[in-house]
Amino acid sequence: MTGQEIGGTAGRDLPEATVGRLAGYLRALTAPGTAASGVISSSTLAELAGVNAALLRKDLSFLGSHGTRGVGYDIAGLADEIRRALGTHLASPVALVGIGHLGRALARYAGFGGRGLEIAALFDASPEVIGTRVGDLEVHDIADVVPVCRDRAITIGVVATPEGTAQQVTDALVRAGVRSVLNFAPEVVVVPPEVQLRRVDLALELQILAFHETRRSSGAVGG
Amino acid sequence: MTGQEIGGTAGRDLPEATVGRLAGYLRALTAPGTAASGVISSSTLAELAGVNAALLRKDLSFLGSHGTRGVGYDIAGLADEIRRALGTHLASPVALVGIGHLGRALARYAGFGGRGLEIAALFDASPEVIGTRVGDLEVHDIADVVPVCRDRAITIGVVATPEGTAQQVTDALVRAGVRSVLNFAPEVVVVPPEVQLRRVDLALELQILAFHETRRSSGAVGG
Repeated sequence: MTGQEIGGTAGRDLPEATVGRLAGYLRALTAPGTAASGVISSSTLAELAGVNAALLRKDLSFLGSHGTRGVGYDIAGLADEIRRALGTHLASPVALVGIGHLGRALARYAGFGGRGLEIAALFDASPEVIGTRVGDLEVHDIADVVPVCRDRAITIGVVATPEGTAQQVTDALVRAGVRSVLNFAPEVVVVPPEVQLRRVDLALELQILAFHETRRSSGAVGG
Repeated sequence: MTGQEIGGTAGRDLPEATVGRLAGYLRALTAPGTAASGVISSSTLAELAGVNAALLRKDLSFLGSHGTRGVGYDIAGLADEIRRALGTHLASPVALVGIGHLGRALARYAGFGGRGLEIAALFDASPEVIGTRVGDLEVHDIADVVPVCRDRAITIGVVATPEGTAQQVTDALVRAGVRSVLNFAPEVVVVPPEVQLRRVDLALELQILAFHETRRSSGAVGG
């Protein structure tokens, strides 16, 4: 049940679902209301993160971390362990392309705080948007993606462009040295084999919810 | 390998991952470039949807659907079968709360088209936003959530509010008769046991990507 048994070095062989949940625990631990209290029980942390306590303990066992029975986890210590496991102690600069509503929402999204993700450059193709600022950052012309990304050592790109442009933008990011692409656009893009690609489909969770709702309404799920 | 073996009535016992992928196939089948071509091979459809062909065939077997060897799937017929399985032939009216950048991005998101999801009411708490329009819809005062949702028979709610208000908004939606809630806000909310809750964490996929990127950079993933 310790990190040793699973992967040698803590954090090396984390299952992807655990990575996601660790991120949630870290967010809960660093929330304003929590961070000040010193210690936290596994049941309280589980509740804050929206998981059950057994799963939390299993996830934390990957870190080789264990709380003190009857006392709980040291909040600052546990947060540091999770940061090391997730690599969030190393800030990863991110380029965000497409400064429409979704891009602006992402640029300001509170959920990035404390996660080792730093939106380091913004790009758009629209002359009305290029040169404007969002927070502390100026919006660059997508035509300048290569020099700007190289200059800032950016290796992660987020695509939040309208339908029909995601492939072109992804190609430009890859030329600029980006090795990991997160695609929010509602279309499939392809990348060279050495580039990591993930996709977020904003409508998908809603559709799954609607699927279950439809079945409940039609009485397909009995009690 | 037929729907019969798995759940009796097609679509009744779809695994959740299959529901998500079926939604992706439907989107690919109904895309402007695809819909007109009449038939499609499983390998082409798999490529458009970004999955491998074996997984596609497994998913479609849940519908009891099978293409003609050497010809492929009838596009219109397959799209109809998926719609019936997902219940998207019944439009589900959705209330969207929080008309900031994220709410506006969701209200206009192209990915909802053809998925049986209809954004039917918009709500916000800000006097500057209430009464304005997004597309065809007027933004209502969140204080009116009960009468508006009841009037439009809304049972699905999407929360896209800033940090700190999601629980209050969720409670109001539940009072208004909403039975399924999708939370985009970067915080955990609780709902009564009879209400379905799902959550989208916009930063999570990016954090998973950064985790892998950090490990690649540090040489932890050898080749």
